[in-house]
Amino acid sequence: MAIVLGPNQYGKAEVRVVAVDRSTPRHSLVDLNVSSSLRGDFTTAHTAGDNAHVLTTDTQKNTVFAFARDGVGSPEEFGLRLARHFAGSHDWITGARVAVESYGWDRIAVDGQPHDHAFRRTGGEVRTAVVTVDSSGGTLRTHVLAGLTDLVVLKTTGSEFWGFPRDRFTTLAETRDRILATAVTARWRYATPELDFDACFDGVRTALLETFAATHSLALQQSLFAMGRTALEQNPDVAEIRLSMPNRHHFLQDLSAFGLGNSPGADERLVYYADDRPYGLIEGTVLRDDAAPAEAAWLGTPGFC
Amino acid sequence: MAIVLGPNQYGKAEVRVVAVDRSTPRHSLVDLNVSSSLRGDFTTAHTAGDNAHVLTTDTQKNTVFAFARDGVGSPEEFGLRLARHFAGSHDWITGARVAVESYGWDRIAVDGQPHDHAFRRTGGEVRTAVVTVDSSGGTLRTHVLAGLTDLVVLKTTGSEFWGFPRDRFTTLAETRDRILATAVTARWRYATPELDFDACFDGVRTALLETFAATHSLALQQSLFAMGRTALEQNPDVAEIRLSMPNRHHFLQDLSAFGLGNSPGADERLVYYADDRPYGLIEGTVLRDDAAPAEAAWLGTPGFC
Amino acid sequence: MAIVLGPNQYGKAEVRVVAVDRSTPRHSLVDLNVSSSLRGDFTTAHTAGDNAHVLTTDTQKNTVFAFARDGVGSPEEFGLRLARHFAGSHDWITGARVAVESYGWDRIAVDGQPHDHAFRRTGGEVRTAVVTVDSSGGTLRTHVLAGLTDLVVLKTTGSEFWGFPRDRFTTLAETRDRILATAVTARWRYATPELDFDACFDGVRTALLETFAATHSLALQQSLFAMGRTALEQNPDVAEIRLSMPNRHHFLQDLSAFGLGNSPGADERLVYYADDRPYGLIEGTVLRDDAAPAEAAWLGTPGFC
Amino acid sequence: MAIVLGPNQYGKAEVRVVAVDRSTPRHSLVDLNVSSSLRGDFTTAHTAGDNAHVLTTDTQKNTVFAFARDGVGSPEEFGLRLARHFAGSHDWITGARVAVESYGWDRIAVDGQPHDHAFRRTGGEVRTAVVTVDSSGGTLRTHVLAGLTDLVVLKTTGSEFWGFPRDRFTTLAETRDRILATAVTARWRYATPELDFDACFDGVRTALLETFAATHSLALQQSLFAMGRTALEQNPDVAEIRLSMPNRHHFLQDLSAFGLGNSPGADERLVYYADDRPYGLIEGTVLRDDAAPAEAAWLGTPGFC
Repeated sequence: MAIVLGPNQYGKAEVRVVAVDRSTPRHSLVDLNVSSSLRGDFTTAHTAGDNAHVLTTDTQKNTVFAFARDGVGSPEEFGLRLARHFAGSHDWITGARVAVESYGWDRIAVDGQPHDHAFRRTGGEVRTAVVTVDSSGGTLRTHVLAGLTDLVVLKTTGSEFWGFPRDRFTTLAETRDRILATAVTARWRYATPELDFDACFDGVRTALLETFAATHSLALQQSLFAMGRTALEQNPDVAEIRLSMPNRHHFLQDLSAFGLGNSPGADERLVYYADDRPYGLIEGTVLRDDAAPAEAAWLGTPGFC
Repeated sequence: MAIVLGPNQYGKAEVRVVAVDRSTPRHSLVDLNVSSSLRGDFTTAHTAGDNAHVLTTDTQKNTVFAFARDGVGSPEEFGLRLARHFAGSHDWITGARVAVESYGWDRIAVDGQPHDHAFRRTGGEVRTAVVTVDSSGGTLRTHVLAGLTDLVVLKTTGSEFWGFPRDRFTTLAETRDRILATAVTARWRYATPELDFDACFDGVRTALLETFAATHSLALQQSLFAMGRTALEQNPDVAEIRLSMPNRHHFLQDLSAFGLGNSPGADERLVYYADDRPYGLIEGTVLRDDAAPAEAAWLGTPGFC
Repeated sequence: MAIVLGPNQYGKAEVRVVAVDRSTPRHSLVDLNVSSSLRGDFTTAHTAGDNAHVLTTDTQKNTVFAFARDGVGSPEEFGLRLARHFAGSHDWITGARVAVESYGWDRIAVDGQPHDHAFRRTGGEVRTAVVTVDSSGGTLRTHVLAGLTDLVVLKTTGSEFWGFPRDRFTTLAETRDRILATAVTARWRYATPELDFDACFDGVRTALLETFAATHSLALQQSLFAMGRTALEQNPDVAEIRLSMPNRHHFLQDLSAFGLGNSPGADERLVYYADDRPYGLIEGTVLRDDAAPAEAAWLGTPGFC
Repeated sequence: MAIVLGPNQYGKAEVRVVAVDRSTPRHSLVDLNVSSSLRGDFTTAHTAGDNAHVLTTDTQKNTVFAFARDGVGSPEEFGLRLARHFAGSHDWITGARVAVESYGWDRIAVDGQPHDHAFRRTGGEVRTAVVTVDSSGGTLRTHVLAGLTDLVVLKTTGSEFWGFPRDRFTTLAETRDRILATAVTARWRYATPELDFDACFDGVRTALLETFAATHSLALQQSLFAMGRTALEQNPDVAEIRLSMPNRHHFLQDLSAFGLGNSPGADERLVYYADDRPYGLIEGTVLRDDAAPAEAAWLGTPGFC
C-alpha cells in the first residue's frame, strides 16, 4: 500500500474586476468576481515542491485583468475566453474551470432620465456562470453552466402542505394556506457554448420567477419541479437545471393569549414570525431525458448530487 | 469612592415580523426587523437580581407581534406606537427606543402584470427608522429618525481628487478622473412626529441619489455635503441628516507590463480592481442652523459624533 | 435659516497590518486591524471640494504601516503613537481617533514544544483598543479605551429568572434553572494613558470571566453588574466599563409528544434549542462615582449611552 | 424527448441542538448544528404535489432533538444513529445524509480551577462529520467523513516560492522567505464506521497541525500533500483525506518611499499587509492506493473533485 496524490486543482479565487466601457458618453460597466482553477499534472509540486508546472495564481489574476481590458461581454463568454486560454497554455494543463459572479447595476434616474455615468447596485440577486474546459483523454470538451443565487421570493397564499406520513416524531399540523418563501439558487447547463447568453439567462430567470408565482403549490418540491420544467420548455438550449431552494419558514404567531385571532380564512391581517434556522432544504434536478450526462460540467460546483 | 451603576438599557433585538394584509385579493406585506430597548429605573435588577421592574424582553417581543396584528403602517409609525406604549407602561420606565429595519418586496410580474400575492425581495438597500420616547424630567419628548443603509452607488467618471497636502508618508498620486463608489448609510431627524413618513422617505432618498449622480465631485466630502444639503432643501421637515459613506476604492489595474494601456483619457475601456479593505470612511452631519439640538434622538444609534 | 455642516470626521478604516519580530529565532507577531479618523477644520472640502486640509486616507494608511515598522507593542500603545502623530501633524487637525482590533495567535505545539515560527489563530474573541486625542479648546486630552468582543460564555445551571411583572402581553414562565449564554462586548476606560496595558487587559478579562462563572445569576443584568464591579475592584486604573451582553436564548425543547421528559431537576440529560433571533440585549455601565466624565473618549464607538 | 426529474434530496438544515449532561455536578455539553437529507422515491411530490412519501423536515428536526435526549456521543456517532434511523424508516427512503458541525467549549478557570458548569466557546475552528447511508441497490453502505474547517495557521518563515514558469502575464517575483498562511478545511473518510471517533479526530488534527509547522515549504501544494500524507501514515483507519487550503496572502509592504527597509534577511522587523481578496486556493486529495473508491461518501459535500 502506498499513500498517493489524488485529484487536485489550484487557482486564484475572487478576483474582483470592474470593467468600464467609456467609448460613448453613455458609459457601461460590468462588475465581476472571477475564480479560476487549473487541472493537470501538478504532482511534483505536491511531492517535491517543484513549481515548474505551476502557472502561478498571481499570473491567473493578471490574466483576468488583461483579458478584461479587451472587453468582457457576458459572464459566460468571459469565462470561455479565460478557460480556453488556461487549458491551452501549457501541455501539462489539461483542464480549467472559471467561475464568475456578476453583480448588477442600474442607472440612477435624475429628473426621470437614466444617468450616463452614475449607477446603483441592484443588490441581492447574483448572476453566476461556470465554464469548464477539459482536454484530458485527448478530446476537448467545453461545458457552460449559467445560474443565479439569492433570488428571494415569497407567496402570501397559494401554498398548502398536507398528506404527509406521520411517525412517532411527527407533530406538524397540516395546512391549506401558508406563506411559501425561498431563496432560489439555480444552475443550468447549456447544450452548446455558442449562444446569446444574456438572452438565455433572461429567459430562464423569467421562467423561474413566473412559474414560482403562478404555481399553486402543494409542496415546495412541486414548485421546484414546475420551475425547472418551465425553464427547460421555454429554453431549448438548456439541457438540465439544478435547483436548491431553502424553505424559509414563516410561522403564524400564536396571538390567542392576547385575545387576538391570527388564522388564514378567519382573519384578513396575519402576523408571521420569519425564522432563521433551521430551514427546510429542497434540492432537485430537472433534465431532458435525452441529454447526455456531463458530470464534468459540475465538478467543483457546490451541489447535492 | 464607590462603584455604581451608570446608564443602562435592555430590550429585545431583531424580532423578525412579517405582516400580511389580505383584505383584498391584492395582498400586501411588510417585512420588519424590530428591536426595542427600555430605559428607566432598573437598578435593583443589576444590584440584587430583583426583577420587579423588568418588563421582560419576551413580553416586548409579544407586544411587537400583537401590535403588528392591528396593521403596521410605515416603520416610523409602528415605532411610534411601540415606543409610546413601552414608555407609558410602568412608572419606572422613563424612555423607550424602537429601531426598525424594513425590507422591500416587489410584486413578481407574470405576463407583464404584477402578481396579486407573489413577491420578490428587492435586496440590498434597507430602510430604517429609530423612534425614541423620553419622559425623564417630567416632559415627554418624541424623536423620529428615518434612514437607509447599503445604498450602493458608483460613478464611472465625474470624480477628481487633488490639491491635498503631502507629508513624509504621502505617496498618493493626484487624479482628475476616478471611479467614485460608496455604500450610503444615512439617518435623518424629523422636526415633528406628525408626517407622511413614506412620502418624506421617498423625498430624501431621491435627493440623495440624484445629487450623488449630478455632483461633479472634487472630494467625497463634497458629494456628502451636497447630498445632505439637497435633502434638507427639498424636505423642510428634516432638521438634520447624518451620512456615513465608505470610499470603496476602485484602483486602475496597472497593465503596462502586458503592453496594455489603462488610463482615463487615453483609453476607452478601463479595468479596475475593486478592493475590500482598507477603505476610506467619510462621515458628516448637515443641519439647519436653527435646529434645536436633540442628542437624545441619536442615543444608542451607531454613529460618529 | 441656513443649511450648514455639522460634526464630521474622516479616515482610513480597516488597515490589516501584520508585524513580525524576527530578531531572535523565536519569532513573534501582532495581527491588527487599524482604523483612524481625523477631526478638525475640513469645512472647505465639504463646501467647495478644496482638499488643502485633507491629509489623505491613503497617507493615514501609509503611516500605520510605517509606524508598525518600528515595533507595535500593545494595541493601546500603537493607537497612542498614531493618534498623537495625527493630531499634532497640522494645525487644522484638532483630534484623532484610532481604533484597533487585535487577533490572537498561539504557537503550534510540535512534539509538545511550542514552535518558533508556526502559529494558530486562537479564533473568536477579539481584543480592542480605542485611543482618542483631542486638542480642541487649547487643552490636550488623551483617552484610552480597552476592550474585547465576542467572548462567548455559557452556564449550564446557576441561572434563574423570575419575579418579573406581568402585563397583557406576558406569557413567559418563570424559571429557577436555565442556561445563561452571552457574547460579551466590553469596553473600559483607563484613568491614565501610562499603564502596562497588556497586564491591565489580562486583569479585566480574568475578572469578567471568573465573575460570570462564579455568579449565581437571578438576571443577566445582575451578572453584568457583578462582572463590571469586579473588573473595577480588581483593576484600580479602570475608571468605567461598558458592557453589552446579548442574551443568547437556549430553550428547553418540548419532547413530551415523544414520551420524553426534558426538565431540569427531573432529568439529567437536557436538550436545548439554541435560537438565533430575536435575542435579549442587556447593556450597562459600571463606574466609579468619582470618575470625571469623559464622553469624548466614547465618541464614534458603537454603544448605547 | 421528455423533461424528467433527476437526482433530488430534501431535509432540514441547521438544527441547533445543545445537549447537556448533568448526571454529575461536573456538567458537560455538546453544541451541534445538524443537517439531514433524505434520498429515495419522492417523485410524486415533485410531479403532483403528493406528499405521501415526504417524511417532513419538521419530523426530521424533532428526531434530532429526541435522539439527542438519549445522549449524543461524538458527532460521527450521532450522525450514524440518525442516518440509519432515517434510511430505515420507510421503504421508499433509500438513503440519508447527516452533516454535523460541532462547536467546542472549554471550562472557564476560576482561581485556577476549571469550573463545573461555566464554559467559554473556543471560537474559530469547527469540527465536522458527514455520515451517509445508502441502501439503494439492495446493499447497505455506510460512509463516515470526519473533518474540520477554519483551522487558521501561519508561518513567519520557512516558506519559499520560486521556479515557476513565466508567461506574458507573469509579473510575480520569486521569494525565498515569505509568510505562509491558510485556513485549513479538511475532510477525511474512515475505512470503517466502528472507531473511537474522538481519538481519531485528535490524531488527524495533530498530524495536520504538526506537519504544517514542521514542513519547510516550497509550495503550499507541498505542505498540503505532506499534511495529508502524515495524517494517513499516523492514522491507519483513514482511507483518504481531502484538503482545501486558501493561500491567505501577506504581502511585504513597500516602505522604501519613507526611507525604511522591509526585507527578510536585511531587516528583523517586517511589516505585512494581510489581503482579503483575491486569494490562492489549493485543493487536493491524498489517499491510500488500495482504498476502494467511495464517491457516495462525498455526495453533497462541497468540494473540488
